[in-house]
Amino acid sequence: MATTDERRRLRVRPDRLLARLRELGSVGAIPGGGCSRLALSDDDRAGRDLVVTWMRDLGLDVTVDAVGNVFAVRTGREGGPPVMCGSHIDTVATGGIYDGNFGVLSGLEVMEVLAEAGVVTRRPLAVAFFTDEEGARFAPDMLGSLVYVGGMALEAAHDIVGIDGGRLGTELDRIGYLGSVPCPGLPPAAYVELHIEQGPVLEAAGGGIGAVTGVQGISWQEVTVVGQPNHAGTTPLSYRHDAGYVAAATTVFARELARELGGDQVATVGRLSLHPDLVNVVPGRAVFTVDLRNTDEAVLQQAEARLADELDRLARAEGVTVERRTLARFEPVEFDPHVVDLVERTAASLGNRVRRLPSGAGHDAQMLARVCPAGMIFVPSAGGISHNPAEHTDPEDLAAGADVLLQVLLALADGDDPPGADRSRDGAGPAAEERR
Amino acid sequence: MATTDERRRLRVRPDRLLARLRELGSVGAIPGGGCSRLALSDDDRAGRDLVVTWMRDLGLDVTVDAVGNVFAVRTGREGGPPVMCGSHIDTVATGGIYDGNFGVLSGLEVMEVLAEAGVVTRRPLAVAFFTDEEGARFAPDMLGSLVYVGGMALEAAHDIVGIDGGRLGTELDRIGYLGSVPCPGLPPAAYVELHIEQGPVLEAAGGGIGAVTGVQGISWQEVTVVGQPNHAGTTPLSYRHDAGYVAAATTVFARELARELGGDQVATVGRLSLHPDLVNVVPGRAVFTVDLRNTDEAVLQQAEARLADELDRLARAEGVTVERRTLARFEPVEFDPHVVDLVERTAASLGNRVRRLPSGAGHDAQMLARVCPAGMIFVPSAGGISHNPAEHTDPEDLAAGADVLLQVLLALADGDDPPGADRSRDGAGPAAEERR
Repeated sequence: MATTDERRRLRVRPDRLLARLRELGSVGAIPGGGCSRLALSDDDRAGRDLVVTWMRDLGLDVTVDAVGNVFAVRTGREGGPPVMCGSHIDTVATGGIYDGNFGVLSGLEVMEVLAEAGVVTRRPLAVAFFTDEEGARFAPDMLGSLVYVGGMALEAAHDIVGIDGGRLGTELDRIGYLGSVPCPGLPPAAYVELHIEQGPVLEAAGGGIGAVTGVQGISWQEVTVVGQPNHAGTTPLSYRHDAGYVAAATTVFARELARELGGDQVATVGRLSLHPDLVNVVPGRAVFTVDLRNTDEAVLQQAEARLADELDRLARAEGVTVERRTLARFEPVEFDPHVVDLVERTAASLGNRVRRLPSGAGHDAQMLARVCPAGMIFVPSAGGISHNPAEHTDPEDLAAGADVLLQVLLALADGDDPPGADRSRDGAGPAAEERR
Repeated sequence: MATTDERRRLRVRPDRLLARLRELGSVGAIPGGGCSRLALSDDDRAGRDLVVTWMRDLGLDVTVDAVGNVFAVRTGREGGPPVMCGSHIDTVATGGIYDGNFGVLSGLEVMEVLAEAGVVTRRPLAVAFFTDEEGARFAPDMLGSLVYVGGMALEAAHDIVGIDGGRLGTELDRIGYLGSVPCPGLPPAAYVELHIEQGPVLEAAGGGIGAVTGVQGISWQEVTVVGQPNHAGTTPLSYRHDAGYVAAATTVFARELARELGGDQVATVGRLSLHPDLVNVVPGRAVFTVDLRNTDEAVLQQAEARLADELDRLARAEGVTVERRTLARFEPVEFDPHVVDLVERTAASLGNRVRRLPSGAGHDAQMLARVCPAGMIFVPSAGGISHNPAEHTDPEDLAAGADVLLQVLLALADGDDPPGADRSRDGAGPAAEERR
């Protein structure tokens, strides 16, 4: 068995990690070097099958829960809940090969390094990938981890209908990932997620490792505007009830609102469709989404309220009706301070430049933070580009991040007490009710 | 043979006209009382077959030209070009049953009334329906009449690809309407089109008949904005190249521009699509259309120029590229003053309230006006609603309009000289080149 010193000198093998990233990226590959594996699609099944094969080849104990989350456990000297790492392997329709996949495959690389070194940790270790993190097919995003921590009832999750009309429970069954392990699952001892930043902050700061302090709150809504379709040539402006105009004016307002609120407030209209969508017909109906995010819950609520006010004002002025539907709503999350410290110290001790920063994107770690000490490790994204085939992180950054994950997992699995152990005794469990 | 007095007392049979309107409206019927017969679709073929059957039942000589325009000729005492009426029977995807169809079926009703009364006019009469007037499947609109008057080469028209990828020439052949009569066609002696107003002006003026003075100029363009798809949570506003935002800001600007230019200037963004069209991805590409119309060519050009300037400004500010493509461009048209006078006098002599007005919509008559004396007769549209299943005109207004058509056709077909005969001698023919 390796000494503590020997353990501290353990490093991942970047070539092996990169080879797995490329092989998984070739499943559902799309032009430009990206991939498309929408949750529970045939391509997602193929990706899952590949990762599960790797898990089994590493001698890990693989289980699947009732919402399709997959766990691969490595036995420790003691029993009890494992120290878990992981992420997701589903992608957006035009995604890159790193988002999510990097965290899962780095976890497997860590397991392989430990096996080669003959290391057995005190607590068990686990690598997980969670279902439908992207929310690109089934809303809300981070669905699998939300159900895992008890934030949504399993039956409600199974009944979610995707953008293509598919039912989540039926699709899970169809692709063979409707597992038998019940949800919500047992809380792990701790959870650490390694992920690409997906933003430009680390790169702009000269690179290095990010010790993630928390996650922005997220508000997703779908807005349906109903006006009156009419002839584009014969209908004077004052007679119009133009649903498309209201959608456009709201899009412009959302940008102005985010600028005015400042800080890290962002606002995005990512989806928009008009009906009947003809060049010479005033749009009678418009459906669009608004994505609002902020680390400050109070400001996020202010953004939501002002957007709602503006929609009401526009609806009255244009003579249209407006309906809003919440697709997802998560409050900002703060990660466990001990885990954040551990990530920061470990990254620095390995010679990395380190920066604390919040995450602009939602991650499974924010769900796990409800039931155990949790944190995240970020590596830079070239140009801040993500959700795009051009998504890229340099191999040396990938290796540096995976080494930090390896050492953080060892510290958590071998320590006397998992960090934030207080929290696990104070009865804080899954949120009583998911705010939707 | 009827005397001049007897001819002046001839009236259409509203029940017969309404029955044909309803029967044709049942082809491609959609919920809400409308119909959907996109040009050269299976439903369009079914509608064409029905109208051609009616034409043959009335003993008319039916011919089809090489762009699918259909002509039904009634012999006169003399030879030479016919006095023509007509319109179109294609519809937008969510259209009403009156737009276009009313003019064609009123023409058939006039033929039936004349046959019953044993009237033979001096010049031949013709009822026409022109291909793809709406432009909802194949751009530009008024395509069939444009090709008929020599404004577009037949081969170019055949090669137009529709919104569903279908090629116009192939689709004509598929539905059996690739006729043998060459294009451009022989100019008629005169052309009169009866049509619903599709706008609110006549109704707001207390109803009656519209003597149409001309048609607004039309500018259709398709704008493609290319930015960068990126993560909606992690990309600060200042790093964004949001194609959807530029599309939205242009939509809002178009409305403001039309308000500022005033008069009868209108601007409509009717079609808009985002890519990848996901809630949490900043749109990397947006494609949308802008429809600008004005009776004043100089102001229309000003609107086009200012829109182009604003697009350039937005593109620079957002760091995106913009491409503009003209889908259709027609200058304003003034109808033949003698025909406008004849419509006005005839409508008044039949006891109608009459109002002169320009058309906000494009019509086949504006194409025919390039090669012969042409004019239009409008009847009111309830609520100004058109291109909508709720499109409606009261039966008495339909009958009044058809009676005006009947008497105007008789006057033109029996007169010593067709009005505007000067023009037919001054060599004015099809426009030398279509401005696209």
